[in-house]
Amino acid sequence: MIKKIGVGLLGLGTVGEEVFKLIKGNHLFSNEKLEIEFEIYAIYVKDINKKRNVDVSGIHITSNYEEVVNNPDIHVCIECMGGAGADKTVEIIDAAIRKGKHIIMSSKKCLAYNMNHIIDMANYYNVQLRFEATVGGAIPICRTLMSMSSENKINRMYGVINATTNYVLSLMEKYNIDFDEALNIAKEKGITENDSSEDIDGWDAAYKMKILAGIGMKADINLDEISPVSVSSLVNLKNDNIRIKQIFYVEKSSDNKIMFYVGPAELEKNNVMYNVRENYNIVFVDSSYSGIRAYYGKGAGGKETASAMYEDLLDIYKQCYWFELTDVTTCEKIDINEISNRFEDGE
Amino acid sequence: MIKKIGVGLLGLGTVGEEVFKLIKGNHLFSNEKLEIEFEIYAIYVKDINKKRNVDVSGIHITSNYEEVVNNPDIHVCIECMGGAGADKTVEIIDAAIRKGKHIIMSSKKCLAYNMNHIIDMANYYNVQLRFEATVGGAIPICRTLMSMSSENKINRMYGVINATTNYVLSLMEKYNIDFDEALNIAKEKGITENDSSEDIDGWDAAYKMKILAGIGMKADINLDEISPVSVSSLVNLKNDNIRIKQIFYVEKSSDNKIMFYVGPAELEKNNVMYNVRENYNIVFVDSSYSGIRAYYGKGAGGKETASAMYEDLLDIYKQCYWFELTDVTTCEKIDINEISNRFEDGE
Repeated sequence: MIKKIGVGLLGLGTVGEEVFKLIKGNHLFSNEKLEIEFEIYAIYVKDINKKRNVDVSGIHITSNYEEVVNNPDIHVCIECMGGAGADKTVEIIDAAIRKGKHIIMSSKKCLAYNMNHIIDMANYYNVQLRFEATVGGAIPICRTLMSMSSENKINRMYGVINATTNYVLSLMEKYNIDFDEALNIAKEKGITENDSSEDIDGWDAAYKMKILAGIGMKADINLDEISPVSVSSLVNLKNDNIRIKQIFYVEKSSDNKIMFYVGPAELEKNNVMYNVRENYNIVFVDSSYSGIRAYYGKGAGGKETASAMYEDLLDIYKQCYWFELTDVTTCEKIDINEISNRFEDGE
Repeated sequence: MIKKIGVGLLGLGTVGEEVFKLIKGNHLFSNEKLEIEFEIYAIYVKDINKKRNVDVSGIHITSNYEEVVNNPDIHVCIECMGGAGADKTVEIIDAAIRKGKHIIMSSKKCLAYNMNHIIDMANYYNVQLRFEATVGGAIPICRTLMSMSSENKINRMYGVINATTNYVLSLMEKYNIDFDEALNIAKEKGITENDSSEDIDGWDAAYKMKILAGIGMKADINLDEISPVSVSSLVNLKNDNIRIKQIFYVEKSSDNKIMFYVGPAELEKNNVMYNVRENYNIVFVDSSYSGIRAYYGKGAGGKETASAMYEDLLDIYKQCYWFELTDVTTCEKIDINEISNRFEDGE
């Protein structure tokens, strides 16, 4: 017996179109209990007249999101609203959750600013929530954290988590030039957007750190306290033994105190992170039972992100998962001059 | 309503004792559907008189495995029989599967030699099978491969997968000495056993490669065709820009042809693997949707391995998973002089 699962897409940009193609091409899914057929019934877009690169004939396209979230045949909404702004996105997610739709997210800024609220809503309205695509694309890091037993306590997480900035820093090292010159080259190549300030100033990494700390440490970090350090105007060290990376670092002590850092750090050539270059990301997880482990992959890309969202979709129908956040007692920033001491050689 | 799940341990050595402690300390598990209480009812050991480091009072200890596998109150058997030999281990696993017990394995040699048979048995007798602890300890790589959608096809897997050999090679690099001298130092320190030939000659890596190819590529590789290249007697290169690692590499083409390699390879200093040192492992997965991703962690250790097995235990009660193997059309070894060309810088 095939059970039909109606899907609503929220957004049809680069990522949305890749998700659309994946679901269209792979709509049948079987597991132990069910055979499932996924079908996209409706798509919310900002501009219904914009030309799309996928064939949406037969599917209801609308710029009124209520026509998606109120549709009783839609079970799960997939949010790909990257450019829409956090407020508009959370308004729509909120409405979808109230209508009992499961939610798959990709907009990290929206999730970071509203994580507590979205988790509370999902738990209250008894819907499943997934957001692998908000952090490190297809690694998959969120699912790994979700699969850890509660006894396996995470003490620290750190790594390189913004592809744009890492790409520019790699150009800086490769050509032995300063950051601003490398940024110009990247812009000319069309690899970075004209306004990459959220990437370069560390906000993108801060959002992702908050999301990871929320899953892995159940910690509700206040974004206003993070104050990331920008990498703009960094001067090239002209030293082959050291590379500068934009890193995030978050540590939780047994009494629920959080220490964190987002910004540049010097990494020695024996450090695994030294060789994480271009648009690759890496997340290290240090936990009580498993010691230090790391997860590496491309941090961005339409196909990679869509693949993560598609696996989120399958995961919702494989097992339920409930998130929770607890308050942190204190939240303290680590000094830039001290951060490099936190990484041992070879980690 | 708490459902009681009876557990039978097969083996109570280093890993078995860590698993014992984990289950004793964390016997309650709740998920969406059930509250579960795990209880160890019986333990099979080779020598019932041997002194144990855990308190087994009240638990039936026996050197007759039938008293474990025939126990109707035992639902799942956890195999920690590392030293017993592949034939004895598979005899017991076979018996347990016939009695309808779910199986969690840690013995990689047994699994590698009997993978086809064990999977067939598990599928036929409708029991769940997990074996995270057979490859790379707690990374977790098996579960990552199992969670990938079938459309996300794995083209290649490679990496550093034997902790002992990697540790000795790291000593070789660190002190600028040849392999045999480094091995003696490691033996004196008690880090390697007196007979590490399975590690050094590449058989341990070959078993793990076969297991990974079985899950990730559904390929049934014949162990007799692998002929790993030993790293013993390697001479130190005395070149800081290159490190030698023992690697595994397996590639699958669209017509189900497999190419593979196990043995030493030269890695340049820009390669992420260059910095995977001591007892750390890394597995790279290159797939159609997600590109190149990698998973890094300690490859060995009682606690890490036990943690992986414990998470396997929880996973069985979260969702069902069925393995399958398909025959490979051809299976070809890559020449040692060509293997380094297969890794691009920075992968």
